[in-house]
Amino acid sequence: MSHVFINGNWCRPEEAVVSVFDRGFLFADGIYEVVPFYAGHALLFDQHMDRLERSLAETEITNPYPRDQWLSICQTLAESVQDANAIVYIQVTRGAEFPRQHLPSADIVPTVMATVSHWTPPTATAAPVRVELMEDIRWLRCDIKSVSLLGNIMLKREADKLGAFEPILYRAGRITEGASCNYFIVKNNMLYTPPADQLILGGITRDWVLNLAESASIEVQEEAFSIQELMDADECFLSSSTREIQPVGFIGDHPINNGEVGPMTQQLAELFRNSRPHAIEEHS
Amino acid sequence: MSHVFINGNWCRPEEAVVSVFDRGFLFADGIYEVVPFYAGHALLFDQHMDRLERSLAETEITNPYPRDQWLSICQTLAESVQDANAIVYIQVTRGAEFPRQHLPSADIVPTVMATVSHWTPPTATAAPVRVELMEDIRWLRCDIKSVSLLGNIMLKREADKLGAFEPILYRAGRITEGASCNYFIVKNNMLYTPPADQLILGGITRDWVLNLAESASIEVQEEAFSIQELMDADECFLSSSTREIQPVGFIGDHPINNGEVGPMTQQLAELFRNSRPHAIEEHS
Repeated sequence: MSHVFINGNWCRPEEAVVSVFDRGFLFADGIYEVVPFYAGHALLFDQHMDRLERSLAETEITNPYPRDQWLSICQTLAESVQDANAIVYIQVTRGAEFPRQHLPSADIVPTVMATVSHWTPPTATAAPVRVELMEDIRWLRCDIKSVSLLGNIMLKREADKLGAFEPILYRAGRITEGASCNYFIVKNNMLYTPPADQLILGGITRDWVLNLAESASIEVQEEAFSIQELMDADECFLSSSTREIQPVGFIGDHPINNGEVGPMTQQLAELFRNSRPHAIEEHS
Repeated sequence: MSHVFINGNWCRPEEAVVSVFDRGFLFADGIYEVVPFYAGHALLFDQHMDRLERSLAETEITNPYPRDQWLSICQTLAESVQDANAIVYIQVTRGAEFPRQHLPSADIVPTVMATVSHWTPPTATAAPVRVELMEDIRWLRCDIKSVSLLGNIMLKREADKLGAFEPILYRAGRITEGASCNYFIVKNNMLYTPPADQLILGGITRDWVLNLAESASIEVQEEAFSIQELMDADECFLSSSTREIQPVGFIGDHPINNGEVGPMTQQLAELFRNSRPHAIEEHS
């Protein structure tokens, strides 16, 4: 079974290689997307493609394919895994050239890699997790979904060492996001999440949660909140394509809603599961 | 001729590949060094190795080789190019594993890549260049020489579009560095350069310039200076391993020292050329 698409060819993971002179490898000069598939059906595919196109435009990397070709590649990958509950990963870099030089040539050809892994979508609201407050050390263009991710990796590893599920990052006293997720809090029945500016990656799941909240007549504020407001929140959850809505029970040692899933979190997680494509149930 | 070392093997550039699942390619989870060789002799090799070891330690990537083995790899590469004036490039990433996951396995094996390109060391002080002021959008751990360089690349491309040699970056009103160099100014016979904190990469050439200045009884301040202090400077130059000391004549449209090479810049550039290994002169 071929699980990797690389520059128009299909191959097995162990055969999938790029030049060491690829600017993705040398300079993190590339972008990516992660698209969840449920029983072969993508959730919010067009939104993922909108963001892919935006990341490419911001970095001035040529988009190598029209949208229907991207869809075909992603579907082929999703269908290659058992029951087609799948996470499809797409990466586009500026391309390879020798010798290494900071400024790329005008005629450089982008490198495209796409792969897939089997995935089990949540079937019920997950148990609350503990997250750890950390200073956001990343760059000021987190709105670009780039592979320049060492900061995210270092923060994620630090959180993991502390036994936390994710970091929750702050910059100048305000919460931004996680290493690979967005955060929401609930206070007095109002839902808050930081604005989609250049300090966070505007998650597709984040936007979908805001849509779901609006359709359920939940009041929403896209507004930066402080560490103290986080600590004082009635509820807290994080969102991402692979984790959907994940309740947060503890910020470090500080409990939120006594460490339990809050009612609005539960409501939104259910709305999310009802809004997504039907996933194939797995029997162990 | 084999110009690339990859995980213990030697190959030609067009054969040199890494897995698409290498964390250097997926997450920019790796570090690098650039070592200049003059007629086969490295300049400040131990200082480059000290910094390599520090970057590996800060990212918690295992150092795969003892120092004598690094030297042997670098020398073999340098000697493979004509007259052995060479820039040797070393990159170490955390390694490859499938499927992609943010947190690496404990037993992951680092990927090592090293390559070389022919280089012409400066034989005289270069003509002054124009640099362009830009906001420093990079992360807060620029002291790690990592491949997470998309911010640097975007800034370098922007400067290039404006016809500038390099960006000169500021953060909160203070000059930090360039996309791939350090900056110095001279004011009233005092030499200033930003401190080697987490906002800049402490250049090996930067440190060497400070040594040379000290040995020439030039007063030095490692102190952050403002945009206004930059504009008011008597002289300005940048430093890097490949450009040694490069005079700066213009900040945007604003001339420094009437766009001419200043006396202290000239003195330090000469001291630099006298302190480095003898380069093979090239005849065109």
